[in-house]
Amino acid sequence: MSISRPPRKGPPPRRGAADRTAAERWIYGRHAVTAALANPERRWHRLLALAGQAEEARALAAAAVAARRGGGDSVRVLERAAFSALLPEGAVHQGLALEAEPLEEIALDDVLRAVTGPGILVALDQVGDPQNVGAVLRSAAAFGAAAVILTRHGAPPAGGALAKAASGALEHVPLVRVVNLARALDRLKEAGFWVCGLDEGADAPLAALDLGERIALVLGSEGGGLRRLVRARCDRLARLPTRPRQPTLNVSNAAAVALYELVRRRC
Amino acid sequence: MSISRPPRKGPPPRRGAADRTAAERWIYGRHAVTAALANPERRWHRLLALAGQAEEARALAAAAVAARRGGGDSVRVLERAAFSALLPEGAVHQGLALEAEPLEEIALDDVLRAVTGPGILVALDQVGDPQNVGAVLRSAAAFGAAAVILTRHGAPPAGGALAKAASGALEHVPLVRVVNLARALDRLKEAGFWVCGLDEGADAPLAALDLGERIALVLGSEGGGLRRLVRARCDRLARLPTRPRQPTLNVSNAAAVALYELVRRRC
Repeated sequence: MSISRPPRKGPPPRRGAADRTAAERWIYGRHAVTAALANPERRWHRLLALAGQAEEARALAAAAVAARRGGGDSVRVLERAAFSALLPEGAVHQGLALEAEPLEEIALDDVLRAVTGPGILVALDQVGDPQNVGAVLRSAAAFGAAAVILTRHGAPPAGGALAKAASGALEHVPLVRVVNLARALDRLKEAGFWVCGLDEGADAPLAALDLGERIALVLGSEGGGLRRLVRARCDRLARLPTRPRQPTLNVSNAAAVALYELVRRRC
Repeated sequence: MSISRPPRKGPPPRRGAADRTAAERWIYGRHAVTAALANPERRWHRLLALAGQAEEARALAAAAVAARRGGGDSVRVLERAAFSALLPEGAVHQGLALEAEPLEEIALDDVLRAVTGPGILVALDQVGDPQNVGAVLRSAAAFGAAAVILTRHGAPPAGGALAKAASGALEHVPLVRVVNLARALDRLKEAGFWVCGLDEGADAPLAALDLGERIALVLGSEGGGLRRLVRARCDRLARLPTRPRQPTLNVSNAAAVALYELVRRRC
């Protein structure tokens, strides 16, 4: 399924690249950079490469430019120290980094217009760690979820750490930011989605529920779980069959398992 | 299931705490530290706390000492800068850190002696990222796997990053290190385990295989997959139902999904 972003109306209203932090401005890591360069909707400025990856970087950039993708064609080959100095501290860059504009935002209604038949959406209630959100995007891509919904407040920017953990999935799976998740869930219910919250204290295992063909999975933060108003909007609450008195699953692992359970039944 | 470690014979043969790096010596994060203090087999030296967590830290330490657990009873309350300076850079410590000895190593034969009936083992072939190994341990605990097997070479130490990602599971799930994973898989087969390698190119989905009640799941590194000699030892190869031409699952998410699939059938 492909969701078209709205046509650009003049220059984007967002802040310029110079105003964003290095953590937001740079996408790094081989999979993340390759996927960004292959995405016709991704505008970029500069591609950095370590000497060992210079040939690969030039080929990637040339292919992107030939396809009239992106806004840049500049490849810079740097020594390791100069390369690392441009990126956030500790970034695992694998020798490739792309200075890029964020993707245009996608509205929930755009997603709902595109998902007319069966579909799975994932909503994260105040999950703040970019690696977790990126890993959820990656699993969403792997299992064919149509979008990942985040709260505008409390969720991380779609920067380098998120893109790296998503391993390219940031270019494939729409990331929708909503001001009020409870209201967004109401909107999903109006659109015919069953809203199912994951909650380790729920009575029903996810596998026991018949949730139909349009499902929105909701997962909370690891510390706090689902907030009260979000939980109240769920049609169903379900748990995964994990052991009591053991650490619970990491939120990205819980999302992967739940997506698998929903997809498995359709295979 | 509980696996007894062999009795200590005099002082442990490992290097002293002073020889280990900060990354190996400190366990940090609330869940990881709390679980380590609650583990009677964990020897520790010092518990650090930020001022806001001082009461909690003293109570945890007192409970550990009262139960004659651990080797230390020293709680130090530090300012944030002094606290962070002792830990590896970027450690997400949540105000608690424990200077601890590694757990005594557990041999594969100890695990096999303990797992006499149905059981699931997870083997990781050269997965080098401590966060991934920690997250696999966490999922192994959540789904009741009996142990996680690592290669002695190429796998991370059971240090702070691994313990943090494991969220306490390092204290619950035995981590077995083997010199030669292919030979270890032979040993598992002799002990009646079906050895199933996860491989996205396999014909059979995991859900379609009847693997019996004693199963060893083998997962490879994200870049390289299973090495040839390891793959050759697998009785079966299986895939998860992920989409072609999308990023594959992160190794810890793949492990969580596979463990779920094996546990689900027994529910």
